[in-house]
Amino acid sequence: MSNTQSNDFTEWYIQTITKAELMSYSPVRGSIIFRPDGYELWEHIQERFNLYLKSEGIRNAYFPMLIPRNFFMKEADHIEGFAPELPWVTEVGDEKLEEPLALRPTSETMIGSAFSDWINSYRDLPYEINQWANVFRWEKKTLPFMRTSEFLWQEGHTAHADEADARRRTLHVLDEYEKVAEEFLSIPVYKGQKTPSERFAGAMDTYSIEAMMKDGKAVQAGTSHYMGTKFAEAFDITYLTKENQHTHAFTTSWGISTRLLGALIMTHGDDKGLVFPPTVAPTQIVLMPVGPWKKNPAIMEKLTGLYEGFKAAGFRVRLDDSDNSPGYKFNEWELKGACLRIECGPRDLENGHAMVKARDLDDKVAVPFEELAGYVKEQLDSMPKRLLDAARARNKANEHFDIDTLADLKAHIETCKKENRPTGFVLVGWDGTEETEAKIKEETGFTTRNIPFEAPMQKTVDIVSGKPAKYTLWIARAY
Amino acid sequence: MSNTQSNDFTEWYIQTITKAELMSYSPVRGSIIFRPDGYELWEHIQERFNLYLKSEGIRNAYFPMLIPRNFFMKEADHIEGFAPELPWVTEVGDEKLEEPLALRPTSETMIGSAFSDWINSYRDLPYEINQWANVFRWEKKTLPFMRTSEFLWQEGHTAHADEADARRRTLHVLDEYEKVAEEFLSIPVYKGQKTPSERFAGAMDTYSIEAMMKDGKAVQAGTSHYMGTKFAEAFDITYLTKENQHTHAFTTSWGISTRLLGALIMTHGDDKGLVFPPTVAPTQIVLMPVGPWKKNPAIMEKLTGLYEGFKAAGFRVRLDDSDNSPGYKFNEWELKGACLRIECGPRDLENGHAMVKARDLDDKVAVPFEELAGYVKEQLDSMPKRLLDAARARNKANEHFDIDTLADLKAHIETCKKENRPTGFVLVGWDGTEETEAKIKEETGFTTRNIPFEAPMQKTVDIVSGKPAKYTLWIARAY
Repeated sequence: MSNTQSNDFTEWYIQTITKAELMSYSPVRGSIIFRPDGYELWEHIQERFNLYLKSEGIRNAYFPMLIPRNFFMKEADHIEGFAPELPWVTEVGDEKLEEPLALRPTSETMIGSAFSDWINSYRDLPYEINQWANVFRWEKKTLPFMRTSEFLWQEGHTAHADEADARRRTLHVLDEYEKVAEEFLSIPVYKGQKTPSERFAGAMDTYSIEAMMKDGKAVQAGTSHYMGTKFAEAFDITYLTKENQHTHAFTTSWGISTRLLGALIMTHGDDKGLVFPPTVAPTQIVLMPVGPWKKNPAIMEKLTGLYEGFKAAGFRVRLDDSDNSPGYKFNEWELKGACLRIECGPRDLENGHAMVKARDLDDKVAVPFEELAGYVKEQLDSMPKRLLDAARARNKANEHFDIDTLADLKAHIETCKKENRPTGFVLVGWDGTEETEAKIKEETGFTTRNIPFEAPMQKTVDIVSGKPAKYTLWIARAY
Repeated sequence: MSNTQSNDFTEWYIQTITKAELMSYSPVRGSIIFRPDGYELWEHIQERFNLYLKSEGIRNAYFPMLIPRNFFMKEADHIEGFAPELPWVTEVGDEKLEEPLALRPTSETMIGSAFSDWINSYRDLPYEINQWANVFRWEKKTLPFMRTSEFLWQEGHTAHADEADARRRTLHVLDEYEKVAEEFLSIPVYKGQKTPSERFAGAMDTYSIEAMMKDGKAVQAGTSHYMGTKFAEAFDITYLTKENQHTHAFTTSWGISTRLLGALIMTHGDDKGLVFPPTVAPTQIVLMPVGPWKKNPAIMEKLTGLYEGFKAAGFRVRLDDSDNSPGYKFNEWELKGACLRIECGPRDLENGHAMVKARDLDDKVAVPFEELAGYVKEQLDSMPKRLLDAARARNKANEHFDIDTLADLKAHIETCKKENRPTGFVLVGWDGTEETEAKIKEETGFTTRNIPFEAPMQKTVDIVSGKPAKYTLWIARAY
């Protein structure tokens, strides 16, 4: 790795995901190719989140990607928010279309129009649908996985008879996103509510989980929106109540995307390359012969037996019997984020053990063959929690509570720059004005992340105006 | 159902899939909404085909949907074939793009360009990738599932060191498509080679599986293409041989799409609605109370127990305890294609049995509760073969071998029209000229389906020219 994390984190990131073959740049501005190891991470996230959907009775569907222009016009805040980033299909073959079609940036409009047809009575509610799809937002600055012109996501859309039920779904999904992040991806997150200026275009309330990367910057890792009746009014989603009244439904939407892959890499990766919890790792176990193994066929015989055993047990396992040197193989599989490396050479075989190295631990351990299956299972079972705890500990060290003024914040940034350490998440008081948010951003590049549900402490004074704080906010630089 | 299959098959089809909520029309010309039951069919096909990919070591990836215009220009036949159907993105926000971007109709160009970067040495070959994606072809005439502007598919793309290996993959996938159709979807297919005029734009050889619908029309249900070195030359996919020679790779591509859903419905459906094999059915078992069940809580207790048992055993099962009448429920679940209906009323409970009705059989059977689990499993296990056999028998009755001239064919069509029966598949002799194909199409609307690998007989004379036949062809009207 020519760039380390501490030298230039972004360079480290791009080089690592490129060399590890998670992605390739494509000829289309800001769009990337998800190579097999990269795409597989997303497939595992899909499997995991589909379990939630299934358990909640929320079914998958698929809606057209192209959205007629007049659909966007129906909800004013929505079009205002998305207009600058929308790619438009204006021609087919040689012919101009009568009405341009947008590539969906999100599907509230298309699904709202469908809900209007499908929902008639209180008996149809709640109506809850999910879609796995590609979406398009032509962003000015792009970074693989984190912010790309085309990305993959799930978008859930629900309609409810009353506000309470809609709000319940909004927050229930947010809780599930927290579980996906923490339990499945070992990424600790900060759960809270977005400020009005950071809401989804057209939402009444937006909630998010925010994750802290190793360089201290934030990633908005999932959002859930309560729409009130705004989209129901724009798209005429009404239902007949028990009392025979036509009433607008209350809607929600929520999404996680392939930017979780970026968060995963920037949370766990190190200077050797990728680190993945086994829940999502494309390679959980890699077996390799070491020493003069070609002279001793019993070594490959042993390893092949182990390989078949792990495979039959359902592990994602590879056997690297290439001619590359052990050092080369170590580097390659560390780069690619294999969770466990199992080596066996002539002396190991003689001693009846294999050498096992977990990607996130420093030491190799000699494990007798008869204990290997148990040891591997134990290691893979404990790795997610270990990675989560490590990330949590790092986060804790980069949370700041004693910054009360803009001057404090600037001084903090200066110090961090000098000492080459992350600026992290800063908890500040906020008087609730957009002026404060704008000023913070303008002067420091920090943006408001969210108003935490459980703030570690309450701040009493607005960081800019010095007025009494109405809210306590996390602010940070963000991807 | 106001339209029966024999009255107006297309009307029957559209009404059935609409009422059964498989799809809705969308505001975008020729694009449909895949509603949950429709999308679930596709999810099961994905699961099934992913097993093949996994067993063959072919991994999933994801490539950008937008393709720069210059990419299409590189392979002349390819652009010629797709140009009229391509939607173009020409603007983003308010700005004109320098180069228009096409919505992918297929990804040979994008993936060819990536292969050119990724493939360097004979050690990299074969290089085999699959993508699940949405694709766009702006067709003049559309029909839900069968032919839509946007559809979902998988496209496999592979590169090989030599022709033999590329041809092996092309045909191996075709065999797998046959298995997916016959073993999984209970759709019997005709496997063969496409004539040159029906080849994929840019392919050297195209192979297909063709299915016969209940109305006798054909559906091209899957295709596999051998490209030779044509795309490798256009996109510079070269590798270094063992002997250190730069050489072009041989490529293939192959796909099945959501048109399989159309084939599934038109193969098995009847005047009551959808019929699905349990392999893909969104509802395998539906349980319902009948008679004066509300007065007797033991009935719902029994049914709930059965429901929980089937659910725990992994079946896709519903319990319909709505207030609708039994007649209404029977119709609804027959419309939706539930494989097995299990009824229980007061007398059934007294007699210790449930009444079971398979969607494709005429009679209800009384099955003692203690034998129910075994009976259900047996029915669901045998249903795919039963549906396949029924479809095969119908196909046999609609295959025609005694049509030797265009006049014969026209007479056949007339007779079928008079007797209101399908024109079916007609096996004819072909001299190998495009003139014959054009003439058949012009005069009868029949198109060449494929040159079967195993023709039931060899025809000796071209149906149009009367010259000696070089090939024996299936022709049919087609979707």
